[in-house]
Amino acid sequence: VEEGRVEDALRLVEPLHPADVADLIELAREEDRVALITALGPEVDADVYAEMNEHVRELVIEEMDPQAAAELTSEMDTDDAVAVLEDLEEEDQQAILAEMQPDDRAAVEEALSYPEESAGRIMQRDLIAVPEHWNVGQVIDYMRSDADLADDFWEVFVVGPNHHPVGTCKLSTLLRTPRNVPINAIMQEEQTLIPAQMDQEEVALKFQKYALISAAVVDAEGRLVGMVTVDDIVHIVQEEAGEDALLLSGAGEGDINEPVREAYRDRVRWLIANLGTALIATFVISMFEGTIARLAILAALMPIVAALGGNAGTQALAVTVRAIATNQLTGANRWRAVNREFRVAILNGATIAILLGAGVTLFLDFTLGWVIAAAILFNIVVAGLAGVLVPVTLDRFGADPAVASSVFVTTVTDTMGFFAFLGLASVVLL
Amino acid sequence: VEEGRVEDALRLVEPLHPADVADLIELAREEDRVALITALGPEVDADVYAEMNEHVRELVIEEMDPQAAAELTSEMDTDDAVAVLEDLEEEDQQAILAEMQPDDRAAVEEALSYPEESAGRIMQRDLIAVPEHWNVGQVIDYMRSDADLADDFWEVFVVGPNHHPVGTCKLSTLLRTPRNVPINAIMQEEQTLIPAQMDQEEVALKFQKYALISAAVVDAEGRLVGMVTVDDIVHIVQEEAGEDALLLSGAGEGDINEPVREAYRDRVRWLIANLGTALIATFVISMFEGTIARLAILAALMPIVAALGGNAGTQALAVTVRAIATNQLTGANRWRAVNREFRVAILNGATIAILLGAGVTLFLDFTLGWVIAAAILFNIVVAGLAGVLVPVTLDRFGADPAVASSVFVTTVTDTMGFFAFLGLASVVLL
Repeated sequence: VEEGRVEDALRLVEPLHPADVADLIELAREEDRVALITALGPEVDADVYAEMNEHVRELVIEEMDPQAAAELTSEMDTDDAVAVLEDLEEEDQQAILAEMQPDDRAAVEEALSYPEESAGRIMQRDLIAVPEHWNVGQVIDYMRSDADLADDFWEVFVVGPNHHPVGTCKLSTLLRTPRNVPINAIMQEEQTLIPAQMDQEEVALKFQKYALISAAVVDAEGRLVGMVTVDDIVHIVQEEAGEDALLLSGAGEGDINEPVREAYRDRVRWLIANLGTALIATFVISMFEGTIARLAILAALMPIVAALGGNAGTQALAVTVRAIATNQLTGANRWRAVNREFRVAILNGATIAILLGAGVTLFLDFTLGWVIAAAILFNIVVAGLAGVLVPVTLDRFGADPAVASSVFVTTVTDTMGFFAFLGLASVVLL
Repeated sequence: VEEGRVEDALRLVEPLHPADVADLIELAREEDRVALITALGPEVDADVYAEMNEHVRELVIEEMDPQAAAELTSEMDTDDAVAVLEDLEEEDQQAILAEMQPDDRAAVEEALSYPEESAGRIMQRDLIAVPEHWNVGQVIDYMRSDADLADDFWEVFVVGPNHHPVGTCKLSTLLRTPRNVPINAIMQEEQTLIPAQMDQEEVALKFQKYALISAAVVDAEGRLVGMVTVDDIVHIVQEEAGEDALLLSGAGEGDINEPVREAYRDRVRWLIANLGTALIATFVISMFEGTIARLAILAALMPIVAALGGNAGTQALAVTVRAIATNQLTGANRWRAVNREFRVAILNGATIAILLGAGVTLFLDFTLGWVIAAAILFNIVVAGLAGVLVPVTLDRFGADPAVASSVFVTTVTDTMGFFAFLGLASVVLL
């Protein structure tokens, strides 16, 4: 498709939504992407870039000259322009900013002054703010008069003196109210205000909890400076919720469009940490070398104890990390959660201990059977407790429980499992 | 707080958002919840129940008599009532439905007739649908005239004959257009139609991709039967994206409010499967019992090979499962993804092999050093390939790659790791 039959391709692409065009470019091989974009010409507009995967976009924009890139970002909403620019190298970023119109540039630079992943970076500056003494008719006339206004708004923000938000009004309410009613009679006074410094994950939880469509963003003085709309939140929820599986596995950002060298850098760090913790387990086993030399079957059975402990620990960990991320697990119910995991672990441990103990007794030896049963019950209970206590403790000290927990938990279950099994076997069997 | 000082509690709870009241009830101990709800009386209304965690709600509703439950669900929007009823036992569900008003009952029963987790279950039936020959003024007058209409709508749906949707119009556009303009002149004709049977995860991906606020749901004949709004989608995105971490770990639903016996049932199944696969690894090791008896240090080192292979496999798996869930990995770029994982695995494997090989050479023995280096390089590459090929294959055969992948991948990395290391050691060292 890419070579030669450009006109056919154009005809196919023309009716597509920008998000679909962006998908098409992502699916093309890396070396074909620039040619494809050139061939599609004006079909690849600012909206398409806004929808593109960030790694793909970064590669494509690095190929453009700064002036073309500046034109492109000027056509975008501020929040999209910020998303494009924040991923670039400092140097490329400055080159593009220098080519932008002063007012666009000022808006983008202001947004970039907020911390990464904060409400200030994802908010839009185009919104409808009206003084509280207006009536419905005035609000509607104002919206009709200004042709430059964006179309993507769902609520009107009512502001008091000093531009402090005092209420919001849904467009549906506005439409259904007679013109002469004052806006402050129909506005909702309770609203969720988002400080510009708030982390986007917090913002997303607020949107979710209160089923918001849009929310006012305020600066440190409480003045209305922008709004966040739910369509941006959906992306953030997807990202943040999906991130945990990746963080728990140590796969970093884990995007399939991430360049190989970045994926390598993210993952190998984790593997090296894992190598370090595996050495602790190795050290524990090496203490029992004499026992293993005399009873090599222990070497064959010990991975079972470690594997099941690791698995039980990962289950408790995944549940706990998720509960923390969704604000369901807080100081108030921490001990209840620990108690719950303990009970689940006793049940799981007893079931597996009986199955494994009976199997080993049947095929090998009774004493070995109850030794491995006791070791696995112990290790599954330890795993359950570690699975909940490690992330809860990390969270309490302000660390992200998804990032470091699994190294700790696996280390605990491996060493405890090997120690309990080999230790008990040394005492009982030799 | 719960006992005695009811009035104080009431005063505290009164200004809270229903979602916050629901949180409060979730945080109470199981045995106190019903007493708390009784004490709070009318503050705990249908909105609070709609916001409550499903497990907590199920427990509370089971305590109510069917008539009270029926009254409660009648006050809810259809989609919330369906969410409450679908979790209950068949018997309780029927008892409550029998007590409901015929029209509410019919709406709920119709929704329940759609498959679980489909668009039909999550859609709202209250929406604004107007004929295409109306003008803006008529649409506005219609919205003003009907006081019964819900307030939560952001777009108007325009329908043709037979109630087929032909376009949508944002309220902002409607507000800013003079009254005499025909609605079909300003409506957007391109819209994303959601078949009522579509899975909610698919629906969420559409909302995300096209940044939708609401979308029309159509039946098999293409007639407009409801709408899905983005506030429900945010919950679904959170659920579905967060689910993968839980499914990969085999923790089932993994909600901290899930009763202990359900959590046990979900997790032990997985542990038993893991026990089965661990036995395969045990079998592989037992083939080398003679080797281990003569060189017990192998038993201490072999878990390193398995642990790092497992970790590398989990990383590739998490990345792949996520790419499949977000529709980024399809038939078109499947081989590119495999190739990418292969290259990352070679880099990771080489790094770890050099580190571990050098360490073992330094502290133990040169031959053992290169044996373990070769085994770990091999196992990390196998892990990377298994981590991408297993979920891709499961997806191709229509299975959910998040559910079963990790059992397969861990089995492959464990057995291959032990086999490569012990096999090579037997040949070279003995």
